Amino acid sequence: MELDYQKIINDIYVIVKSDVNEGQLASYIPELSKVDQNKFGVYLKTINGNGYGVGDYNIKFSIQSISKVVSLALAYGICGKKLWTRMGVEPSGTAFNSLVQLETDNGVPRNPFVNAGALVICDILISLFDNAPYEFLSFFRDISDNDSINFSKNIAKSERYSGHRNIALCYFLKSFGNIKNNPEEVLDLYFNICSVEMSCLDLSSTFLFLANEGKKTTDSKRILSESRTKRLNALMQTCGLYDEAGEFSFKVGLPGKSGVGGGIIAVHPSKYVTVVWSPLLNDKGNSSRGMKFLELLTTETGSSIF
Amino acid sequence: MELDYQKIINDIYVIVKSDVNEGQLASYIPELSKVDQNKFGVYLKTINGNGYGVGDYNIKFSIQSISKVVSLALAYGICGKKLWTRMGVEPSGTAFNSLVQLETDNGVPRNPFVNAGALVICDILISLFDNAPYEFLSFFRDISDNDSINFSKNIAKSERYSGHRNIALCYFLKSFGNIKNNPEEVLDLYFNICSVEMSCLDLSSTFLFLANEGKKTTDSKRILSESRTKRLNALMQTCGLYDEAGEFSFKVGLPGKSGVGGGIIAVHPSKYVTVVWSPLLNDKGNSSRGMKFLELLTTETGSSIF
Amino acid sequence: MELDYQKIINDIYVIVKSDVNEGQLASYIPELSKVDQNKFGVYLKTINGNGYGVGDYNIKFSIQSISKVVSLALAYGICGKKLWTRMGVEPSGTAFNSLVQLETDNGVPRNPFVNAGALVICDILISLFDNAPYEFLSFFRDISDNDSINFSKNIAKSERYSGHRNIALCYFLKSFGNIKNNPEEVLDLYFNICSVEMSCLDLSSTFLFLANEGKKTTDSKRILSESRTKRLNALMQTCGLYDEAGEFSFKVGLPGKSGVGGGIIAVHPSKYVTVVWSPLLNDKGNSSRGMKFLELLTTETGSSIF
Amino acid sequence: MELDYQKIINDIYVIVKSDVNEGQLASYIPELSKVDQNKFGVYLKTINGNGYGVGDYNIKFSIQSISKVVSLALAYGICGKKLWTRMGVEPSGTAFNSLVQLETDNGVPRNPFVNAGALVICDILISLFDNAPYEFLSFFRDISDNDSINFSKNIAKSERYSGHRNIALCYFLKSFGNIKNNPEEVLDLYFNICSVEMSCLDLSSTFLFLANEGKKTTDSKRILSESRTKRLNALMQTCGLYDEAGEFSFKVGLPGKSGVGGGIIAVHPSKYVTVVWSPLLNDKGNSSRGMKFLELLTTETGSSIF
Repeated sequence: MELDYQKIINDIYVIVKSDVNEGQLASYIPELSKVDQNKFGVYLKTINGNGYGVGDYNIKFSIQSISKVVSLALAYGICGKKLWTRMGVEPSGTAFNSLVQLETDNGVPRNPFVNAGALVICDILISLFDNAPYEFLSFFRDISDNDSINFSKNIAKSERYSGHRNIALCYFLKSFGNIKNNPEEVLDLYFNICSVEMSCLDLSSTFLFLANEGKKTTDSKRILSESRTKRLNALMQTCGLYDEAGEFSFKVGLPGKSGVGGGIIAVHPSKYVTVVWSPLLNDKGNSSRGMKFLELLTTETGSSIF
Repeated sequence: MELDYQKIINDIYVIVKSDVNEGQLASYIPELSKVDQNKFGVYLKTINGNGYGVGDYNIKFSIQSISKVVSLALAYGICGKKLWTRMGVEPSGTAFNSLVQLETDNGVPRNPFVNAGALVICDILISLFDNAPYEFLSFFRDISDNDSINFSKNIAKSERYSGHRNIALCYFLKSFGNIKNNPEEVLDLYFNICSVEMSCLDLSSTFLFLANEGKKTTDSKRILSESRTKRLNALMQTCGLYDEAGEFSFKVGLPGKSGVGGGIIAVHPSKYVTVVWSPLLNDKGNSSRGMKFLELLTTETGSSIF
Repeated sequence: MELDYQKIINDIYVIVKSDVNEGQLASYIPELSKVDQNKFGVYLKTINGNGYGVGDYNIKFSIQSISKVVSLALAYGICGKKLWTRMGVEPSGTAFNSLVQLETDNGVPRNPFVNAGALVICDILISLFDNAPYEFLSFFRDISDNDSINFSKNIAKSERYSGHRNIALCYFLKSFGNIKNNPEEVLDLYFNICSVEMSCLDLSSTFLFLANEGKKTTDSKRILSESRTKRLNALMQTCGLYDEAGEFSFKVGLPGKSGVGGGIIAVHPSKYVTVVWSPLLNDKGNSSRGMKFLELLTTETGSSIF
Repeated sequence: MELDYQKIINDIYVIVKSDVNEGQLASYIPELSKVDQNKFGVYLKTINGNGYGVGDYNIKFSIQSISKVVSLALAYGICGKKLWTRMGVEPSGTAFNSLVQLETDNGVPRNPFVNAGALVICDILISLFDNAPYEFLSFFRDISDNDSINFSKNIAKSERYSGHRNIALCYFLKSFGNIKNNPEEVLDLYFNICSVEMSCLDLSSTFLFLANEGKKTTDSKRILSESRTKRLNALMQTCGLYDEAGEFSFKVGLPGKSGVGGGIIAVHPSKYVTVVWSPLLNDKGNSSRGMKFLELLTTETGSSIF
């Protein structure tokens, strides 16, 4: 019998909401700094198709780096282990936008979730497809059963304008030969991918295949093989929250991925996907309330993968 | 119904043994370089108390860093989250004996499994107990139900003599004030802890409490709370195999801990502990055959935590 | 009485030329990789106006980073010590195009000669002048008494096309706020500045003011104050040859500046400027024959600043 | 005709003394933290044998790292360029006691003046002599014409007790094989060498050979060849003040060496040696008043090597 998830998330929501709303908006992207910092939404969806929401779970927000799970799944499904000649699967131990390690490692990003790795994934998608942005959106819509998913031109433009560090990363990768296409095209795709806006509810549907051995729950369509699904989850576990991945693994105990828009997805294999959104970020760039909520969720339910 | 683990491990053992035995002995510790490199043992023990062995599973070997799980469990059980003021819970992204990160982080080790963190754990044990070596052995014997566990004076001496990097680490930590006791005493305990010799069979019993929510399976005695047990497993997942932790998580998908003596333990929460021993190490310092065996085990059984 | 510099440089030229011509062409800039690697020219000009040449001293080559002394002199003459709020005066201990240190130092380049520092100087010139490229050329022509000095569009374009590392550096600096203008404009100026082509003879005239307390020898026009001239020389001593600055100081004992086109200038205050050109570079990016020639020159004449 | 050095240093002394006495005592060595922070002495000695003093120039202080010039001169005189197989001649760009670079460079110190390099010099002296401490003192007494020079047991003991970073460095070097002897013996010599106490007056006599082409001025005895003397001066120029070497070169324009006891020596080749002592250190570990005094000295006399 399923737990009473609705009661559980309602209770935790109240507890977390009653705490001070700490942290900072992602100020370096102008569009993100305009978000209402009191928004707070949660959605939990089980592989049986049951969904439970609380707060602003139906409001769209900028999913930012959470989108990197989608681009990675698309590339991994096609290329398989050949991906790992272009990047590693190790946690970086450094900030998500660090260039230091890249210099030491001769342009091979530590994993696909640090910005450098996500840029290489974009480069791979451009090499794979005639129209990579279109294929990315098609894939995203397919796994989400949601044809309205689209790039947000305002946010992409806003990031492009202020994303000097990412431009630096992309040209740095190019100088090592680990970007094969035009860096400007790679950056365009990258900023577009990060600009998608979705709600907690939408996101929980999108990533439910990761809790379901690689298959969609709606139509049982296989998105990734079981083995690759496990591996993608493992990657989220060790690398999904940048240099707070250890802390997240330690406290929450689930594979997860965060974005600077304040969203975090957490996958409990064979059970559920939970998505939390609250825009104020801690000093590692992850949603403060999101971290607290998920820690309480796995503690309360006595259920993590460990 | 339990899987036929005996058949599974027998089959994988044959496959791995038929491959070239690649890698290097841990040459920097004189005593370890004398080990027979063809030794290869496996033992899997389920929380129901069933055990399955193949090869040299009953021969003792130097468990080295695997011992750090024991010292950490002892300190964590007493100090709880106060531990994390002295060290972090993040993967390091660097080699286990690196000093670089320590300088950047002002003497706070990234996690309790890198050498620096394990030295701080030793320092904490010395502060906690009048006779830390004795208390460590008592705890070890208790969780193992094995009173014969002891330090190996030869190996401890051999490491002390050649362990210049660890001596450097300990004094470096002292210079930051993160060693409170006499560095020489801390080093003695550290080298003693790493010198314990055990068999795969013994080790599987020792660590079964980690698969059993913190309780021994023999007498249900609680060693760690359920929550701390989950957290210790999470730490092994993200940090247990040093800068190959990501790879291990990715390919094996279980919390684990390795030692330069060629042993690896892997914990499947609520299911089993598997211990593999084969002395030749890959270039990250982990047993080559151990890595292969465990990857095939979770692939074959279709069972990892992800 | 002046030494017989003509005989001295002739003799050394013969010795160095008879050695194997070791090293590599600067392959990363396509235009530079087409240069005849056997070219070898030397010109020494004293502050009394006497000049002594041997070999290909009258053939133009791409002066590359040597040009950074000119842009620095222009900016320093105007801004004085305010420059050092934007960059340091310390040797970097790392390669000229490293990004690592910049990340650690929050976007403040160690000195004006590493690429990052030279980019900031370009940014400063753009802020100072309505038409920075024009003002740079005017200043260059003035100190050289040579109106034919110009940018080489081919080389600038060639570098722009392949200069991904420099593009990365510029956007990285921008991300720290240490580039005030449009990075693309800064990069254009940077690549133009590095594209100037001159001969050893021309260069010796250009930089003679550095040996003459800041005044041109032809018309006694002051370019820099005596104190700033000393300081610019000191900077060349400690930072002019990147991570080979110590070696150069140690073996040659004169302030100097090198370029990947194979040129090196060396200044003996109150005495002379010597310019050597030979395109094959050692593994630090400095002209192999240039290093040898200058070491023999100061050894033979028993004359360095030490 | 010589300048009126007495008047010059008197005037500068008054100016510097009237400024706030800023900085910190070297607190990490207990014995040094007891020094009277208002002590301030200067002595300038020309190669003609004339001497000029002001303030506390006749009071002994702990010369600390200044002693490393003596141990280097001793080893360099015997080993010549073979020294540079064990360490480099490049500025480090990092703090004097950093371990980071050593890890990157596989245990080869950047230069003989960073602590790691000085430890390797001690190791070399121990390999060269049956009784290295005795030979070091003999050499020191010889170049100083002063038989009373001796180790200060109190200071050596005080440093030994608190010098955890140096102990770490020595064992780190040993782990790379760049210490050949017993690390404890190397550390003893190192701490002894740094413990010598001398006055500004004594130090100016000691180092006058560096301004005199390698010969003592008293009896013309050759200490180092002319060429090696130039090279040792060049090394002091680029590396003598650690990560403030560039600043010192830039502002003072003379080869120099500092110690955390508050002393700085500056060598003007063919002219003089100046020694300043004032115990309060700036944040780079160099005497604040010493830096100011020497900058004014070379500015006032219009005389640096550049």
